Amino acid sequence: MVNMGNRLLITLLLFITAVTCDIIDNEVDDACNLSSELIAEIQSYGPTVEKIINSITNGKFKGGTYKELSDFVDKFGSRLAGTQNLEDSIDYMLNLLQKYELDNVHGEDVQVPHWLRGTETGEMLEPRPAEVGVLALGNSVGTPDEGIQAEVLVVRSFDELDQRNFSEAANGKIVVFNFDYVSYGVSVSYRSQGARRAARHGAVAALIRSVTPFSMYTLHTGSQSYEANTPRIPALSITVEDARMFQRYQVKKIVVKLNIQTQTLERTISRNTVAEITGSQDPEKVVLVSGHLDSWDVGVGAMDDGGGAFISWYALAVLKSLGLTAKRTLRAVLWTAEEEGLIGVQEYNRAHANELNNITFVMESDEGTFTPLGLEYSTGTRGGCILQEIVKLLAPINATQTVSSPGGVGSDISIWNRIIPGGSLLNANDKYFWFHHTDADTMDVMDPDALDKSTALWASVAYIIADLSEEFPRDFDTVATSLDNSVLLKKLADSVAANKIKKL
Amino acid sequence: MVNMGNRLLITLLLFITAVTCDIIDNEVDDACNLSSELIAEIQSYGPTVEKIINSITNGKFKGGTYKELSDFVDKFGSRLAGTQNLEDSIDYMLNLLQKYELDNVHGEDVQVPHWLRGTETGEMLEPRPAEVGVLALGNSVGTPDEGIQAEVLVVRSFDELDQRNFSEAANGKIVVFNFDYVSYGVSVSYRSQGARRAARHGAVAALIRSVTPFSMYTLHTGSQSYEANTPRIPALSITVEDARMFQRYQVKKIVVKLNIQTQTLERTISRNTVAEITGSQDPEKVVLVSGHLDSWDVGVGAMDDGGGAFISWYALAVLKSLGLTAKRTLRAVLWTAEEEGLIGVQEYNRAHANELNNITFVMESDEGTFTPLGLEYSTGTRGGCILQEIVKLLAPINATQTVSSPGGVGSDISIWNRIIPGGSLLNANDKYFWFHHTDADTMDVMDPDALDKSTALWASVAYIIADLSEEFPRDFDTVATSLDNSVLLKKLADSVAANKIKKL
Repeated sequence: MVNMGNRLLITLLLFITAVTCDIIDNEVDDACNLSSELIAEIQSYGPTVEKIINSITNGKFKGGTYKELSDFVDKFGSRLAGTQNLEDSIDYMLNLLQKYELDNVHGEDVQVPHWLRGTETGEMLEPRPAEVGVLALGNSVGTPDEGIQAEVLVVRSFDELDQRNFSEAANGKIVVFNFDYVSYGVSVSYRSQGARRAARHGAVAALIRSVTPFSMYTLHTGSQSYEANTPRIPALSITVEDARMFQRYQVKKIVVKLNIQTQTLERTISRNTVAEITGSQDPEKVVLVSGHLDSWDVGVGAMDDGGGAFISWYALAVLKSLGLTAKRTLRAVLWTAEEEGLIGVQEYNRAHANELNNITFVMESDEGTFTPLGLEYSTGTRGGCILQEIVKLLAPINATQTVSSPGGVGSDISIWNRIIPGGSLLNANDKYFWFHHTDADTMDVMDPDALDKSTALWASVAYIIADLSEEFPRDFDTVATSLDNSVLLKKLADSVAANKIKKL
Repeated sequence: MVNMGNRLLITLLLFITAVTCDIIDNEVDDACNLSSELIAEIQSYGPTVEKIINSITNGKFKGGTYKELSDFVDKFGSRLAGTQNLEDSIDYMLNLLQKYELDNVHGEDVQVPHWLRGTETGEMLEPRPAEVGVLALGNSVGTPDEGIQAEVLVVRSFDELDQRNFSEAANGKIVVFNFDYVSYGVSVSYRSQGARRAARHGAVAALIRSVTPFSMYTLHTGSQSYEANTPRIPALSITVEDARMFQRYQVKKIVVKLNIQTQTLERTISRNTVAEITGSQDPEKVVLVSGHLDSWDVGVGAMDDGGGAFISWYALAVLKSLGLTAKRTLRAVLWTAEEEGLIGVQEYNRAHANELNNITFVMESDEGTFTPLGLEYSTGTRGGCILQEIVKLLAPINATQTVSSPGGVGSDISIWNRIIPGGSLLNANDKYFWFHHTDADTMDVMDPDALDKSTALWASVAYIIADLSEEFPRDFDTVATSLDNSVLLKKLADSVAANKIKKL
């Protein structure tokens, strides 16, 4: 998830989210004045929610999400945008969604980048000989065939790098960024911008401390981007341990040799994967549930974002099997190329620009499917009140919390923040960034019971919103809302242009 | 620590320890009947212990253990037996111990094996192509230059392997051991014996799940050994994640290709590193404190056993600086080649066979120097009672617990179990085996305050035992004790012969 490091706009939104989000817990907001009729209507879904929960946590679907996900990642492993393997996995999903008798199963083309990792070696020559674990960040250029050998300069921050003495010292050096981890949203800027910031001062490569609160000599990849008129230098992740070691060595002469081979091939066609349960009354109106099917090329993308993608489509499969057809259409979308910069959702947004007014609520799970706690949302006040009523029904799985995050939720769906009301899965994901974008993102992180509960929550919330007599309120309180998302699109386009995402 | 996997005897002792050890906590055993004079004498060390603790946790030695350890591992990195790097690190220590004005600083020669890791690659070809992380276990032979390619057979236990259907199926296969982790002492048998057990059935290589309760795709090395009349096959560690993945794939055809290059060179001379504070009254009587200076070749051996070695000599350095000379001699020994099978201590035992009766108490820290909790010990009842009185004085650092482990304590010093009373550092080491024998064994695992407290405990306990008017009681209750350790030596010799340790 949250592969938005290369887009300042969204990083900023995330930061605002982190600062402003507020756990409301089980209490319905005092500002709520929902009609007693609406409250009664929501509560009338109690037996339906119980049926959904029971079928998934005790009934025929118990363990189903885990089993399908395990089969999937064991079959395909990692699913990097641009690879045939991702496309094969999408074909597999299209077949599987049809097997579960969902409606309107199809793929929607998206042009995606195709970057490939090759040989990667790092070696410290001074002050003592040792291997240094390195992992190229997405879109990184390689070194010459013979590698790069240079002295190392360690900085703790961009500010330190930009001080004149450091700035001059960086010329011809390999710059190590040994920042303190504050939060992913804050610290990821070193990963996304480190190489170009170092290159401005003449650095020949950037070694960026992995963005994580915990390390077992663990390398984390992720997106990064270059800028116009600045040389493109290799951008590599190193471990927290080695970043701190280099910091201790800073008083000595440090020499490192790197050999990194990467390839940037022609852009290829991937697909967003779509399946629906057509609404019985207002089929053109849509509640969208989602996760992304692509992953980085390390680990197998079981957590990021196999879990989110699989609870999304499996929620629909369960509802279909239970004969629960909502008034509005439920649409599952498994985004492609999220990791390279929300590529799939941007194409979806473009292709469906004229239909966005019919999408009444968007959901995405891309921050873990650990034990679910409730729902995080970005809506107006009235929308929040409705969601607070809905999650009360999730008491049987102890998932009744809500968090209001006006800065946006999800990763892909964050592009619709303040345009379409949205929700994401609140879950016990305190270890999420331990595993994120690493070889440790495997089925071992996933728990069958947590996945069951996540699917149950996902299915329940999506179904009720899609079935309520009242369409989900589109207002965002003080800020005027509009279906015309041209402003956002322009911001995105500017950002894309600035970061050369199109030239990946 | 605990590199005794290749010796059934000691593994068994560990197992017994795990089963029988009993946390006595802060209560002095009911069976104690120490004289009021002895109790008063022990309690009279209160001001001395306070002085030691204050000087280390608040005074001039604060942070000293961490600083010295950090300088050491940053200078030398890992310290594998047989390497010049280990010998250089021993020279450095001899200089350092002299700088701290300890007495009788010297090295004592030990012949050690010299095994070296080379190229290591693992690749799954079927059912899907993927890299497989592999790490040769100590003493492993390599593959032919062109590697080995074979089908995989997964077993959960030795019992399963030895069942006839599996046993026959293993022929020509790469055997994966996917055991459940029970405890290190129990589960390590798969690492130490897996290759030879698989080879008995004609396997061409053994892939052994890393022995750990927690994994982030983490590879753990460690010792293993071959047996006579069974082919020597490559013995490799794989991650918990991949072991479980292979288990899921067991119903399919799994093909793996391995290329492992290792070298077994001529045995070389290493050294146990010794320093003392000569006793003022009975200098021939010795309390020995220890840890091992060598490490595996992954990580930097900061935890295993940099911490244990450094609290041992630093405890003496502090006592020396404080002018605290005990009646008996305090001797720090930094063992060499512990990891290859307690090689250093065995040579010490041989060379000092005639003086062992003068060693009144042995201490070793080789299971972490996290926040200390107290002392684990293997003594008779009266010895335990004395230790329980002593640790009461450690209340200022909350380290007053004792655990009686009649099966033995420490790793090196376990060879003297039931021969010389011993103690090891009880500490909050629940994550010890997360990092053990991995690239993640770095300074980041170490905490300056925990090291300070560990040093303070170590210095206090050793000093009191060395200074008490009563020599530490050598009795082991029901089992007759003797200074003649010929029985144990014979058992060790048998074990060494059986495992061909001498032919490493």
